[in-house]
Amino acid sequence: SANIVLISRAFRHQFIIPDFQGFTKHIEDFYWKCKPNTEGKVASYIPQLARMNPDYWGVSVCTIDGQRFSIGDVNIPFTLQSCSKPLTYAIALERLGAELVHQYVGQEPSGRNFNELVLDYNKKPHNPMINAGAILVCSLLKTLIKPEMTLAEKFDFTMNCFKKLAGGENLGFNNAVFLSEREAADRNYALGFYMREHKCYPDKTNLRECMDFYFQCCSMEANCDSMAVIAATLANGGICPITEEKVLKPDSVRDVLSLMHSCGMYDYSGQFAFKVGLPAKSGVAGGMLVVIPNVMGICTYSPPLDPLGNSCRGLQFCEELVNEFNFHRYDNLKHATNKKDP
Amino acid sequence: SANIVLISRAFRHQFIIPDFQGFTKHIEDFYWKCKPNTEGKVASYIPQLARMNPDYWGVSVCTIDGQRFSIGDVNIPFTLQSCSKPLTYAIALERLGAELVHQYVGQEPSGRNFNELVLDYNKKPHNPMINAGAILVCSLLKTLIKPEMTLAEKFDFTMNCFKKLAGGENLGFNNAVFLSEREAADRNYALGFYMREHKCYPDKTNLRECMDFYFQCCSMEANCDSMAVIAATLANGGICPITEEKVLKPDSVRDVLSLMHSCGMYDYSGQFAFKVGLPAKSGVAGGMLVVIPNVMGICTYSPPLDPLGNSCRGLQFCEELVNEFNFHRYDNLKHATNKKDP
Amino acid sequence: SANIVLISRAFRHQFIIPDFQGFTKHIEDFYWKCKPNTEGKVASYIPQLARMNPDYWGVSVCTIDGQRFSIGDVNIPFTLQSCSKPLTYAIALERLGAELVHQYVGQEPSGRNFNELVLDYNKKPHNPMINAGAILVCSLLKTLIKPEMTLAEKFDFTMNCFKKLAGGENLGFNNAVFLSEREAADRNYALGFYMREHKCYPDKTNLRECMDFYFQCCSMEANCDSMAVIAATLANGGICPITEEKVLKPDSVRDVLSLMHSCGMYDYSGQFAFKVGLPAKSGVAGGMLVVIPNVMGICTYSPPLDPLGNSCRGLQFCEELVNEFNFHRYDNLKHATNKKDP
Amino acid sequence: SANIVLISRAFRHQFIIPDFQGFTKHIEDFYWKCKPNTEGKVASYIPQLARMNPDYWGVSVCTIDGQRFSIGDVNIPFTLQSCSKPLTYAIALERLGAELVHQYVGQEPSGRNFNELVLDYNKKPHNPMINAGAILVCSLLKTLIKPEMTLAEKFDFTMNCFKKLAGGENLGFNNAVFLSEREAADRNYALGFYMREHKCYPDKTNLRECMDFYFQCCSMEANCDSMAVIAATLANGGICPITEEKVLKPDSVRDVLSLMHSCGMYDYSGQFAFKVGLPAKSGVAGGMLVVIPNVMGICTYSPPLDPLGNSCRGLQFCEELVNEFNFHRYDNLKHATNKKDP
Repeated sequence: SANIVLISRAFRHQFIIPDFQGFTKHIEDFYWKCKPNTEGKVASYIPQLARMNPDYWGVSVCTIDGQRFSIGDVNIPFTLQSCSKPLTYAIALERLGAELVHQYVGQEPSGRNFNELVLDYNKKPHNPMINAGAILVCSLLKTLIKPEMTLAEKFDFTMNCFKKLAGGENLGFNNAVFLSEREAADRNYALGFYMREHKCYPDKTNLRECMDFYFQCCSMEANCDSMAVIAATLANGGICPITEEKVLKPDSVRDVLSLMHSCGMYDYSGQFAFKVGLPAKSGVAGGMLVVIPNVMGICTYSPPLDPLGNSCRGLQFCEELVNEFNFHRYDNLKHATNKKDP
Repeated sequence: SANIVLISRAFRHQFIIPDFQGFTKHIEDFYWKCKPNTEGKVASYIPQLARMNPDYWGVSVCTIDGQRFSIGDVNIPFTLQSCSKPLTYAIALERLGAELVHQYVGQEPSGRNFNELVLDYNKKPHNPMINAGAILVCSLLKTLIKPEMTLAEKFDFTMNCFKKLAGGENLGFNNAVFLSEREAADRNYALGFYMREHKCYPDKTNLRECMDFYFQCCSMEANCDSMAVIAATLANGGICPITEEKVLKPDSVRDVLSLMHSCGMYDYSGQFAFKVGLPAKSGVAGGMLVVIPNVMGICTYSPPLDPLGNSCRGLQFCEELVNEFNFHRYDNLKHATNKKDP
Repeated sequence: SANIVLISRAFRHQFIIPDFQGFTKHIEDFYWKCKPNTEGKVASYIPQLARMNPDYWGVSVCTIDGQRFSIGDVNIPFTLQSCSKPLTYAIALERLGAELVHQYVGQEPSGRNFNELVLDYNKKPHNPMINAGAILVCSLLKTLIKPEMTLAEKFDFTMNCFKKLAGGENLGFNNAVFLSEREAADRNYALGFYMREHKCYPDKTNLRECMDFYFQCCSMEANCDSMAVIAATLANGGICPITEEKVLKPDSVRDVLSLMHSCGMYDYSGQFAFKVGLPAKSGVAGGMLVVIPNVMGICTYSPPLDPLGNSCRGLQFCEELVNEFNFHRYDNLKHATNKKDP
Repeated sequence: SANIVLISRAFRHQFIIPDFQGFTKHIEDFYWKCKPNTEGKVASYIPQLARMNPDYWGVSVCTIDGQRFSIGDVNIPFTLQSCSKPLTYAIALERLGAELVHQYVGQEPSGRNFNELVLDYNKKPHNPMINAGAILVCSLLKTLIKPEMTLAEKFDFTMNCFKKLAGGENLGFNNAVFLSEREAADRNYALGFYMREHKCYPDKTNLRECMDFYFQCCSMEANCDSMAVIAATLANGGICPITEEKVLKPDSVRDVLSLMHSCGMYDYSGQFAFKVGLPAKSGVAGGMLVVIPNVMGICTYSPPLDPLGNSCRGLQFCEELVNEFNFHRYDNLKHATNKKDP
């Protein structure tokens, strides 16, 4: 049925990127430009991540009308890690409403170099894109949405939501990563207990289960291809461009994109917003979701990370992209003649 | 000549807001909705500001194709105060290039509640929208652009740039405010000396002249009507929609808008980006520049301020605006059916 | 045998407080002056502490030559809580040497109001008198001294050391407090994990055992009478005035007293050093050790605490004491004629 | 007349250091031990300090009964710099009382590495031994004590007080240093304005005069010999051992010594209190006051400073001193048999 949608659109000449083939040529160019970049180091705090092949490099694109393009290692499954944060936040917004969610977690950048001060001045985590905030969002999902579910059921429920965002494409779970993450998570346990001390969680939160749930969300696996569909669903106001299913409300998506814009790239977020100007979220396995609102979703995958935790090839790709196309949030659409409008 | 441009466009039915009259009806509605709002207090740190009439309330709109609408107290001149910060930053970018400017000043939000730590970890002010950064930008304008100019000449030069942004409309200077600001500026002098201690300024900077120049920029006067043209010039990639003069390069404008988005509303910036999602800059005299990129510029004017320093009526107006129209940066343009697309 | 020592000294007229009876009259006066003080609140974070009788009030004195005086509720056992911190630190110094111990923990006040930043700039806890530092000292005791000991054996070993400091007088253990502390210890677990993340512990540290050991030290019980002997042992350079056993080296005692002086009274430490000028350590059960070096040890016991966690009656007692006698560290001994030299 | 006092004491065998000649032998030893120490750098922020001879090295001792000993470059005048801070604080205490003074300035160490946050949480400078606190103390001296005095008269008044502390020995003033300090004082002006912003000063404070007064106090000159008398006056509860004049009350001296103990050695204060355990104050010209309460005052002079601003030879001398003698505040006087009691 997705095919029929695509075909009918093609007949009506309504594609958001009219010359998709020409556009993918550019993507291919950027891909090859970034390939020789061997900067950065694979994450090494657990052996499963340390063993990742630093040469993996893939880029997938999915427009809001379902046109797709992929190049490179786009079928290698990788763990979502922090790329799961905007997704769990989206589910929380969708099910609980922004007002309730933001009684527990803030909406502001945490400020560079102040990661030691884990809570903001209202004694809430700064935002859902940092570990403290994502742990808290997990406690909301676990404790406030269908609390009668067991941990196993809540995991299934969440994975199902992620799958819908991905147009039904396959997601996996890496149990070895989960077990290692749980073992190596001194900082996260410190955050978890610190927030319990400050009564950040909703009543009846079971901290250990909530931490496990958080590590499980981080340990889900997807490949570049499917992640691009997830990014496209966010670009498309919550409607999956492949299945046309309305997975999220536009308001939830708006809030997710706002915080990906200001807080999605760890301590580089401020500079990324300045230079690239697109909502994005990176994870330590090397994945990176990039959303061009109302146009397309992109996923890049390459394990080597810079010192701040963002994929080196992924960052370079984004810079190439906005240098060529008028995708920066604040590019002028009329007068910036040196940039292409695909 | 501006008229001819407008008329020719009207003939070609090319206006960015096709039904401008219908749109202005909504603006009028918002205006009347905000009028009874008597929250906030007029700035009182100098007598000239303390005497401002708290009832003043005006809104002006100017689209990127030059259509204009104004309601309320739009002809009362007020001092630019912090609304001058994006403008001096724009001139610095235009004349010196982003690379040089950002060797001296950062691009990141300073982090809520940490205004005491006035410099970031590279010993630079966090961004040009806070006082420390704006003082530094003034030192760049004074010391690196035509250093042979006297202070009087540099003031004329700058006012001229501001005028061009405003389509040639009249700007004034409030000498009483200037003298009072200079007298009452303990914090700014502290910042000024602190930055000199940390060798933040370019060589040959004369601190006293540079502080005077900063206070002079803050003490320029304009009315709501002209300020809306300035905002529209920013919305239009640097080309004034009234005169069609290319005042700024699109790249300079992109950088200005990026930092207005993340840092323009004092400590409320993060929440404003989340809720309203538009680049804006407020000043303590009650003015507020709002930019809807590629669409229009807005200025609101109402002296009473909330505790963070933003105009109360101005803030309410912005919220009304994005509740009704799909102007939030991350509103979905296709599927958010509950919002109007003017 | 202790009696013989006392008697022989008495014959030689060598007592440090020549007119002990006159002196105890003053102590009695201070005791009655503080008794009506009903300020403060009993600690309530665990039920066992919340149930303590707020009327309990006792003072015990033991000079370095073994003269003793007690008044009030001096036989009620209470848990040591933070009063155990100087004792575990003393054992660590004694067995491992100051150099080794201070490779792991600092020697500085942590700075008022900055308890969020739990580690100093060398990534060590600031000093052994705060929770982070005391947990670390427990890891040294557990991991570096006779590591072959089981947790039970290490507990016995430590209690034995405490007993020697107390001249062999009885110490107890409150298992209900231990279990509750362990349950309610979100902040301490957060600190524990945070320090493990920063590799603060010696190799082979088992964090869970080390935390249990820390809670066990806090849950030991003693009464006011015995605690005064411990304080007197510290006043006497490490030689217990009752048994004449050399329990600690003078160098270890010097370091303990230095840090009790600068860091022993939580966030009030700086002011206490200024006003009272004596090494002291308070605990949340209401106990307070006060050392007058080369003269005597004092213990006060009264459960109601001020907002910073120090016993209200204990604080008042110390102020009465230094107002009357020249015990403040920087009282002049010759010319301050308005103060008594007992 | 001073001689008569000395002689009469000598007849009565009442000297605090019974074998003064034996003791000075040790001082001489320490002096020669420290002489080859060529670590550190002469202060270089103004040319007058940069030109100081790094080889200068002098030590002077004055006991509370007026016995004196000097070795090395003890007649070279040097500017007091921060060594003036305890003296101005002492005058403020003496004339205004501790209660009034401490309404304006705190009593706590400022916390290592947090010198950026110049005010404590009551919006007061942390203590009178740091620049912010000393500037504030100068504003108290200038504004609250005989406010009718001109700046010149207030300078004379203050220098007179200093002279009395020094037993009438000569003090000078280095005008070149004063002018240079005033020129190079970005940080101090930043502090000055910052405190005015926070309304730290008493009413009617003239900031510029108060800053000038502060720089003048820093620019007074004395030599090592006279400074030792000042230290001895502090050791003797405020009575000058040379003139027997009661210059300060014992209570004022107690407070001065308390804060020299906890805050006198810049960011090294905590460690100095731990290792040396004596009240001291260093200045960037290389001078260092050391007080052994109830025993003697010492001054060392050697310009090369360690990175924290303390004289390298001075620090070494203090360590030698407490290694040999039981002068550390918490040395045990009875049982620490490895240390000498002079």
